[in-house]
Amino acid sequence: MDNAAEFDVVCMGNAIVDVLSHCEEADIGRLDLVRGAMTLIDAGRAQDLYQQMGPAIEASGGSAGNTAAGIASLGGRAAFIGKVRDDQFGGVFTHDTRASGVTFDVQPATDGPPTARCLIFITKDGERTMNTYLGAATNLTPDDVDPDVIAAAKIIYMEGYLWDPPQAKEAFLKAARIAHDHGRQVSITLSDPFCVERHRASFRELITHHIDVLFANEDEIKSLYQVDAFDDALQHVREDCAVAALTRSEKGSVIVAGDEVHVIDAAPVAHVVDTTGAGDLYASGFLFGLTHNYDLPRSARLAGLAAAEVISHIGPRPDVVLADYVRGKL
Amino acid sequence: MDNAAEFDVVCMGNAIVDVLSHCEEADIGRLDLVRGAMTLIDAGRAQDLYQQMGPAIEASGGSAGNTAAGIASLGGRAAFIGKVRDDQFGGVFTHDTRASGVTFDVQPATDGPPTARCLIFITKDGERTMNTYLGAATNLTPDDVDPDVIAAAKIIYMEGYLWDPPQAKEAFLKAARIAHDHGRQVSITLSDPFCVERHRASFRELITHHIDVLFANEDEIKSLYQVDAFDDALQHVREDCAVAALTRSEKGSVIVAGDEVHVIDAAPVAHVVDTTGAGDLYASGFLFGLTHNYDLPRSARLAGLAAAEVISHIGPRPDVVLADYVRGKL
Repeated sequence: MDNAAEFDVVCMGNAIVDVLSHCEEADIGRLDLVRGAMTLIDAGRAQDLYQQMGPAIEASGGSAGNTAAGIASLGGRAAFIGKVRDDQFGGVFTHDTRASGVTFDVQPATDGPPTARCLIFITKDGERTMNTYLGAATNLTPDDVDPDVIAAAKIIYMEGYLWDPPQAKEAFLKAARIAHDHGRQVSITLSDPFCVERHRASFRELITHHIDVLFANEDEIKSLYQVDAFDDALQHVREDCAVAALTRSEKGSVIVAGDEVHVIDAAPVAHVVDTTGAGDLYASGFLFGLTHNYDLPRSARLAGLAAAEVISHIGPRPDVVLADYVRGKL
Repeated sequence: MDNAAEFDVVCMGNAIVDVLSHCEEADIGRLDLVRGAMTLIDAGRAQDLYQQMGPAIEASGGSAGNTAAGIASLGGRAAFIGKVRDDQFGGVFTHDTRASGVTFDVQPATDGPPTARCLIFITKDGERTMNTYLGAATNLTPDDVDPDVIAAAKIIYMEGYLWDPPQAKEAFLKAARIAHDHGRQVSITLSDPFCVERHRASFRELITHHIDVLFANEDEIKSLYQVDAFDDALQHVREDCAVAALTRSEKGSVIVAGDEVHVIDAAPVAHVVDTTGAGDLYASGFLFGLTHNYDLPRSARLAGLAAAEVISHIGPRPDVVLADYVRGKL
């Protein structure tokens, strides 16, 4: 890729503050949560769920925001596009994102709903169950996409979750067009199997015509192609996309790029504490590799290492400088 | 103590959201921080320091608030008196405090400065350096003290930090008077050596005449009596106070009650991650013991266990149910 770009990656997504709390297995059923998934909730449900949640901590999150922070932590140059409000949570998100070394210059909304938050219930196995109130994130519009920022990045990366707020989808399509006009690449993650359910036809069309690099986990890619076997999904995606990075939790990941296929083991993790951010940090590592001329298997191994770090502690972003963490491990 | 009370302990203090971030040792000097201490800062300095802080997490804190959460986590009945604003951080503090099982019914301020926050820089040795913007906490007044709540508690507990906002001090003196009028006990922590510097004469007068149980660490008690040797401070406090619990970090604690003196070893900690809340949780354990008819050494051992739990992870309140954590360890 062109190394003259100002940014390695521009990430677009919902700007969200995570509210993380440990819970008992029984709470998942009692509170009518969808275990392991991301469920969209309205303001009333958010208030109700929060009241029933245990003591929590707050940490900046959002899928693409986490990915951007991970890229910066690896030593890459990342920018983020997403929308907060000018409230305290918006201040927290803006601070943490900039303090992690990510360029974030989108103006906060001065009215409308508050900054988005995601109520995350973490069970004893480390699995996170997410409940997102999108709030101000729904106000991301094409006007928030600065063409100069898009043109200045080797690759843009978007979360599939952006397909939920209608204007955000338009913002992404604008960004993708600008990127391709400037000879840049465009990547996306499918985000969540339920997100794929909501937007399958649109995602299929997008991937076939506009996406250079696709990220998906096993459930998502099987849902996209409505197949039961991982290998069937694999054969489909080879036809549709130049590069696909397919993650399979503790089974590692499979990278497909035309005739090139790599099956990469997961990095070892002594104790899984909180899986929040696993897929996001996988994308950080893979995109860092791609934009630094790593070959595909090396990019995938870096991706696995970044994911391993983030699931070994509570919170969706690295606890350490990833560039130091991965040194000597590749 | 009287077991017919509705609450074991009512804790009064500044209602604060902690903003916790790891830092390098060099940052302490570069940012002109007072290592290991609590420094009061104004809104401008808070904004400036936050901009220079790394990515952070937010967690409800405040010394007496932490103590109340710890008492509830041990299975005790605790109430908290302190002041937030009706903003997002105020919502976080209120949620976490109630969700931990603590009764907290003080009305939030509807105008004035925002909810207090404490910018905490954690160095690699786990030491926390605190910088507090008091904000709405300065609006705690005697009117916020519900006489029925005070009269319903076996003991009230106050942080010395309340001596900083003038009206809060009046609120505590009112609470102490109500407590004693109802035959209840009154306890205080000296909070911080610099806090003792600011209020030494007032603390001396208070302790001699109004305090039944005193908490202080070694630096604080030596500063109170302006002596260089811990033992000199120990002999002074025996004259002034019915019960004093003096903490000495890894050296454990010393309990003095007239002719009764106990020297208790610290509970072992595999790895000190973040000392935020150590003294607060020590007070939780000791007060739980006192209000459940434990003898003094058993109360001190429980105190040490609660402190050991909180310094083994990031954040100022227990990560686990303390009643389970201490089971079989006393």
